[in-house]
Amino acid sequence: MRQLLTTTELTIDDIHEILSDAEEFAEGKIWRPNKQTFVSNLFFEPSTRTKCSFELAERKLGLEVIPFEVSTSSVLKGETLYDTVRTLESIGVNAVVIRHNKDRYFDELVDRVQIPLINAGDGCGHHPTQSLLDLLTIKQEFGGFNGVKVAIIGDIRHSRVARSNADALVRLGAEVVFSGPEEWFDESLLEYGHYEEIDFAIRTADVVMLLRIQHERHESKGFKSASKYHEAFGLTEAREKTMKYGSIIMHPAPVNRNVEIADSLVECERSRIFKQMQNGVYVRMAVLKRSLEKQEGGKVNVINHQKWTVAY
Amino acid sequence: MRQLLTTTELTIDDIHEILSDAEEFAEGKIWRPNKQTFVSNLFFEPSTRTKCSFELAERKLGLEVIPFEVSTSSVLKGETLYDTVRTLESIGVNAVVIRHNKDRYFDELVDRVQIPLINAGDGCGHHPTQSLLDLLTIKQEFGGFNGVKVAIIGDIRHSRVARSNADALVRLGAEVVFSGPEEWFDESLLEYGHYEEIDFAIRTADVVMLLRIQHERHESKGFKSASKYHEAFGLTEAREKTMKYGSIIMHPAPVNRNVEIADSLVECERSRIFKQMQNGVYVRMAVLKRSLEKQEGGKVNVINHQKWTVAY
Amino acid sequence: MRQLLTTTELTIDDIHEILSDAEEFAEGKIWRPNKQTFVSNLFFEPSTRTKCSFELAERKLGLEVIPFEVSTSSVLKGETLYDTVRTLESIGVNAVVIRHNKDRYFDELVDRVQIPLINAGDGCGHHPTQSLLDLLTIKQEFGGFNGVKVAIIGDIRHSRVARSNADALVRLGAEVVFSGPEEWFDESLLEYGHYEEIDFAIRTADVVMLLRIQHERHESKGFKSASKYHEAFGLTEAREKTMKYGSIIMHPAPVNRNVEIADSLVECERSRIFKQMQNGVYVRMAVLKRSLEKQEGGKVNVINHQKWTVAY
Repeated sequence: MRQLLTTTELTIDDIHEILSDAEEFAEGKIWRPNKQTFVSNLFFEPSTRTKCSFELAERKLGLEVIPFEVSTSSVLKGETLYDTVRTLESIGVNAVVIRHNKDRYFDELVDRVQIPLINAGDGCGHHPTQSLLDLLTIKQEFGGFNGVKVAIIGDIRHSRVARSNADALVRLGAEVVFSGPEEWFDESLLEYGHYEEIDFAIRTADVVMLLRIQHERHESKGFKSASKYHEAFGLTEAREKTMKYGSIIMHPAPVNRNVEIADSLVECERSRIFKQMQNGVYVRMAVLKRSLEKQEGGKVNVINHQKWTVAY
Repeated sequence: MRQLLTTTELTIDDIHEILSDAEEFAEGKIWRPNKQTFVSNLFFEPSTRTKCSFELAERKLGLEVIPFEVSTSSVLKGETLYDTVRTLESIGVNAVVIRHNKDRYFDELVDRVQIPLINAGDGCGHHPTQSLLDLLTIKQEFGGFNGVKVAIIGDIRHSRVARSNADALVRLGAEVVFSGPEEWFDESLLEYGHYEEIDFAIRTADVVMLLRIQHERHESKGFKSASKYHEAFGLTEAREKTMKYGSIIMHPAPVNRNVEIADSLVECERSRIFKQMQNGVYVRMAVLKRSLEKQEGGKVNVINHQKWTVAY
Repeated sequence: MRQLLTTTELTIDDIHEILSDAEEFAEGKIWRPNKQTFVSNLFFEPSTRTKCSFELAERKLGLEVIPFEVSTSSVLKGETLYDTVRTLESIGVNAVVIRHNKDRYFDELVDRVQIPLINAGDGCGHHPTQSLLDLLTIKQEFGGFNGVKVAIIGDIRHSRVARSNADALVRLGAEVVFSGPEEWFDESLLEYGHYEEIDFAIRTADVVMLLRIQHERHESKGFKSASKYHEAFGLTEAREKTMKYGSIIMHPAPVNRNVEIADSLVECERSRIFKQMQNGVYVRMAVLKRSLEKQEGGKVNVINHQKWTVAY
């Protein structure tokens, strides 16, 4: 059983294996488990993209998706995450995908449930399948990572993706720099790369990787500062013109148009934003395959004919 | 790719083709696309009937339905309808069915997404599959439309169905009249048919087509006027007795019992109300088939190996 | 067509037949209807366990599950349960599973719809598949019911399960006693068994069957009394030590840890709590099979080519 909780737990070999499987899926490869297999997606936060992407990946692998709606679940009666997952395990679900607003929610589950967990985002912490789809997109574009300069721009401190992407990219041989408002830079990121002034970063990067501004987390600043943000740190039409030949634009979406990026650039020739979404399905197929193919047949965390041993 | 946004965009030939396919499905015909095909139903308004009916039609065609719940989607983070649909398209959804409370919501999508859109109702505007199921029910009953007199009765001004049904029926050769409260009649409907006094309309029609009173839109009038409405314009037991031999009762449902129609008549011999629901599935199968069978294999609005061309 | 509304309507032979089918499913038996079959789960109350368990049972039988979300349905427009179920029947759903907070909600449906209804819990009344999974768990453990002493402990008055379990167990030959707060005992339960003091009941029972404390129904008593409840009537670590060799612990879940049962005992050797959940799937498969295998092919409560007979 191989779960996926964080990108940092993956070795370079693991990453290459997943990306290589994902590329095969992108080319039409078919892989399906050899028995009826059930999976459930537990999303404790709103999400279109990630949830639908997992759903599609699961269907393409022929998995049966057991719907789980938080709003109609026993979580409302105060049930813990552990009891919810153990319940799903007991009734025969073979893997769970979880998104939760609590950092490292999975710590209470690891080693206590026997089915694989796939982390679809925890708090401000990790979002490994997002990182992997970013890596796949870069690999497809440049053939590899050596010497590719990636500028990660925006709300770095609150981004699930910034830290784990930086970690993986550096390990894979890429060069990482950060930009955006300096107050959102975080000293702890220095181990991956330094801070660069926005115009320089955009002009010199092979990959301009924009992060989503979390309106939810910066509410007080309002719309006025949204357009100010665009001027100061967004990918404006003017800045895009300074980008290197062959360089690309990435964004995890949903995009705040005219904040992180000019509306007119969302689908421009350099943009890989919708390509990233497409890649998300292939990466998730690879991650699910990896979790399921090593599972022993029908193992469930209840002894099947659990009984007291008879005392003679 | 053939979408379905309004009934008016359909030619007489289109309508006959859809009805003819629907009749074949009613008789047990099986049609399935020759590859795994994904569809998503985006319902921004509550609906049992239409949503479940599409879902059933989709399953009968062997389609994979990707669940989309507005209440847990990124629409809550302010994502536009366009970005939502483009996302679904990017991850591999092959067609979307949409119901939205905004009139002509689809204008912002047409020509910007490459997958077929099927309109499951927009604002007070159009609801083409409802019209088509009404047409199928009439055709099954009378063998055709020529000379069939249809009385459309009730809240004509706010009805999605009244206008598009009237338009299609007239084009197909039927005679259309309107009845109900005169203040709900609309001058613009005169191009399809005139207004008739309620007792005369019911006595002379082949099809008594009742519309749902939108309590949501006439709240101030309260229950008292609901029973007054029934007396004045509803299909009472007394009025039903005056109906022609062979004439039928239709209603798009959900029915307000004892308002538009007496409780005892909802399932009477003349009533085709539940038959209409049954026909809804067959019509939707025909519409989905029409949208999917002309699709080119696997075409998605992202170039599959989108890359910058290499400059030598 | 065989529905399942209450446990009391089942004969001893019916129960043995269902348990025997369930045991076969537990051993890997495969049964599937010979045509595409649709089922819908209508849950008007929150539930993880029961809803997911039915969903899994349905998928294992190869059924197509038509999603029905109360929060986005026409029930919000005031549609009755009868009209909702008739709608589903008309569009081709072959069976419905319903959970509703109204006692005997099914009385308005019986004999008025032609598809089987499976009761997944009504008000404080019945929850037959929960009873059946409890019976299966006891049968697996003790080989049968004769002479097995079952102590049902807790909120007996408000429990769906207490009364119907007691009735079935007594009919099957088991001995039933009740314990917990005396004010929650109900004179009408005396026909099944007497009240016993908690320590004696736990010490002498083969099955300690704990009921969930309905916080929702005893809100005023607060957390303080929750720990008091545990001391007075819960399965504490001390009481567990007094249990007979070979005796087991059951609970319908979700568990209130350290209220009905000590946290450390939820997954102890005696506990069959997660085993019960696993059994729930097999029992529901048996119940669904029983409802579907006797159905006549494609019968729907609308005459397929419903028309007026032609008068010559």
